[in-house]
Amino acid sequence: MNQYAASGVAPDLVAFHSLFEAVARFGATPAGGLHRLAASAQEGLARDCVCDWLTQHGFSLRVDPAGNIFACLALAGDDASWVLTGSHLDSQPGGGRFDGALGVVAACVATHAISRAQGLQFHSNLGVAIWTNEEGARFAPSMLGSGVFAGQYDFDFARARADADGVTLAQALALTGYDGQDRGPEHVAAYVELHIEQGPELERNGAAIGVVRGNWGTNKYLFEINGVAAHTGPTPMSQRRDALLAASHLVIACRALSDATEGRLLTSVGRMDIHPNSSNVIAARVTVYAELRCTDNNELQRASRALEAEASRIGVETGTGIAWQQVTDRPAGNFDDALCGLIAQVASVRGLKAMDLHTVAGHDSVSLRARCPTAMIFVPSKDGVSHNEAEFTSVQDIEAGVQVLCQVLESLVAARPGA
Amino acid sequence: MNQYAASGVAPDLVAFHSLFEAVARFGATPAGGLHRLAASAQEGLARDCVCDWLTQHGFSLRVDPAGNIFACLALAGDDASWVLTGSHLDSQPGGGRFDGALGVVAACVATHAISRAQGLQFHSNLGVAIWTNEEGARFAPSMLGSGVFAGQYDFDFARARADADGVTLAQALALTGYDGQDRGPEHVAAYVELHIEQGPELERNGAAIGVVRGNWGTNKYLFEINGVAAHTGPTPMSQRRDALLAASHLVIACRALSDATEGRLLTSVGRMDIHPNSSNVIAARVTVYAELRCTDNNELQRASRALEAEASRIGVETGTGIAWQQVTDRPAGNFDDALCGLIAQVASVRGLKAMDLHTVAGHDSVSLRARCPTAMIFVPSKDGVSHNEAEFTSVQDIEAGVQVLCQVLESLVAARPGA
Repeated sequence: MNQYAASGVAPDLVAFHSLFEAVARFGATPAGGLHRLAASAQEGLARDCVCDWLTQHGFSLRVDPAGNIFACLALAGDDASWVLTGSHLDSQPGGGRFDGALGVVAACVATHAISRAQGLQFHSNLGVAIWTNEEGARFAPSMLGSGVFAGQYDFDFARARADADGVTLAQALALTGYDGQDRGPEHVAAYVELHIEQGPELERNGAAIGVVRGNWGTNKYLFEINGVAAHTGPTPMSQRRDALLAASHLVIACRALSDATEGRLLTSVGRMDIHPNSSNVIAARVTVYAELRCTDNNELQRASRALEAEASRIGVETGTGIAWQQVTDRPAGNFDDALCGLIAQVASVRGLKAMDLHTVAGHDSVSLRARCPTAMIFVPSKDGVSHNEAEFTSVQDIEAGVQVLCQVLESLVAARPGA
Repeated sequence: MNQYAASGVAPDLVAFHSLFEAVARFGATPAGGLHRLAASAQEGLARDCVCDWLTQHGFSLRVDPAGNIFACLALAGDDASWVLTGSHLDSQPGGGRFDGALGVVAACVATHAISRAQGLQFHSNLGVAIWTNEEGARFAPSMLGSGVFAGQYDFDFARARADADGVTLAQALALTGYDGQDRGPEHVAAYVELHIEQGPELERNGAAIGVVRGNWGTNKYLFEINGVAAHTGPTPMSQRRDALLAASHLVIACRALSDATEGRLLTSVGRMDIHPNSSNVIAARVTVYAELRCTDNNELQRASRALEAEASRIGVETGTGIAWQQVTDRPAGNFDDALCGLIAQVASVRGLKAMDLHTVAGHDSVSLRARCPTAMIFVPSKDGVSHNEAEFTSVQDIEAGVQVLCQVLESLVAARPGA
């Protein structure tokens, strides 16, 4: 592939910015962020916007029963394998504009530019993938659509996931018009995704391109704490079985596990569902959503066991019943070496400072790794802020990312005869 | 009053049970409890049911702009003062059938029986009061309607209270048909309320009747914790400003204040509102609803200052901003001695074991104390359970309470010439 790293097709950056801004209107918040939950009306409109562009530019669309969209360019014929690129259009509640949308819009303009370039001979086909429910904010688990494509879940499992109001993914997809019957390409030669870093490392190191060498391991838990509803007044303290008190101890225990590792282990509780959540009633039931992340799978497993032990102890001490379910068990792992090398080489030829790093967050790429050679390109996040309306990546950094993605994809699908 | 304690009008207990069961259908839960929030459609239907009964039995209804209902029997003429009795029909989410409803239905049948009794001369009028939003589960603060009647709040304040969906009390009252223009009786000679204890003391002591001598002091707080929304993955631990971690520390600090007093101080956090409450996002904002209760006002104030100091410390340690607002400042105080004595005497004459106690919970009676001589009668709660669908008081205990209430009211409004 190497001979093409120095030249390369130029993506249409004006088209990129135009489509990016158009998509960012759907679910836009007054503070400049996005509130565009998976398979919501707003995400449906954002998908319509991107799909219209893709159709107008010669892509052929397929939608599968998980709502994943595959926009296909059969450049090398039906027998050839496919190189996919893409990301997701759903956001966190009150999230940022770049998370996911950058990778989708970059995939559109990069693949389109390659398909129209002169003098290329294609040995692979190219496709844009828009994955369903990457964020996991509306439906659990996260990375659901890409997990189905990678064989981790089946369609029925994905379609039966329900949001907090009991609406299933299948129902939500039908409402937005993305409940499809197609299947994605079968023979996938590679998947490459452009994404914002969502952390501070690139900015701190003055790097423009992150070569994502692998992902941190992630274990996610649901702890179901059962107390007893009672009046917060006359109920004697000794008689209380307070699920919210137990949950609070668990949040602090989770944090303490991280504090003991000097940052090697990241832990968090971002969500608790409290019932009945009335100021005069001792909480009868609390669901705690806890996450642990580590680059060392052994340390991650030890921390997970320690958290489970803490939960048991807290249950006994507070007189509550605590049961748990590990909902994600995603070991640390590496992306494809050859693809990482190609990204680094393209960045170098373009004069961009690149650095190796590992993604702490989950991404559709982490799912795809189980199915095909996979890699990710990161661009900097200002102050490392993400999942926040203030999420920001500069135009210069974005354009560098789009160009690197385009050149990497070109190298993967095409040869330039006589070069 | 004493000469009437031994005899007394007999309330119609069949009518009591019939009306009690009829009212309990509205908002009934499958587990035998109630989910009937203030000014909801279900509470509106329960009010309709009681008001129909009252109208059919000769009461004249008035509804004020806070939605309080006054069902009036002008037994002694327009110039005479009023003795009021009653309670509330709203419940906690997933609450019990007896909390509030007992006092309302008992008031209906007791006042009606007295009005129809032969040979009484009335020197006071009698009225049933149904107060709005006693629980505080839908609108804050609790005891809102009775607080207005007692002069603690004005109508505009009450009407502007909004629930979690932004619906104001005025809007909710209009929807249920209880947005009135009337005023309650002006000259109130006494208020007596029958209520379940909601604690274990009567049952523990084998007593049938609680003479409520006073109320514990209660301070309630809203703590607003401001963190920064961020990705739970790549955001370095040192950079996190986690509002839910701070809230958890606050819950535990609140509990620790109680633990240090061997039960003299009761504390609780029953509710937290978490934003955005997504498992992958560090919480940006949490509102913590904390309560402190104590019989000793000085100890209560010391504990409140200690909790505020803890909140400041937690804010600094977690890098969050914590502001607070004390939403309830209800000092411990005593009910009317003469009324308490009357209740004890009536119980004694009826051969019922009575005991003095103090209410830890707030009640409409605690509001009314600011306006007129006030007292409360408690009946036992099985296992002390309340604000729970399993809340239960036996038929025998209920009937004893209704009879004591009736006889106390009779003594307050009537003389029996020649007795």
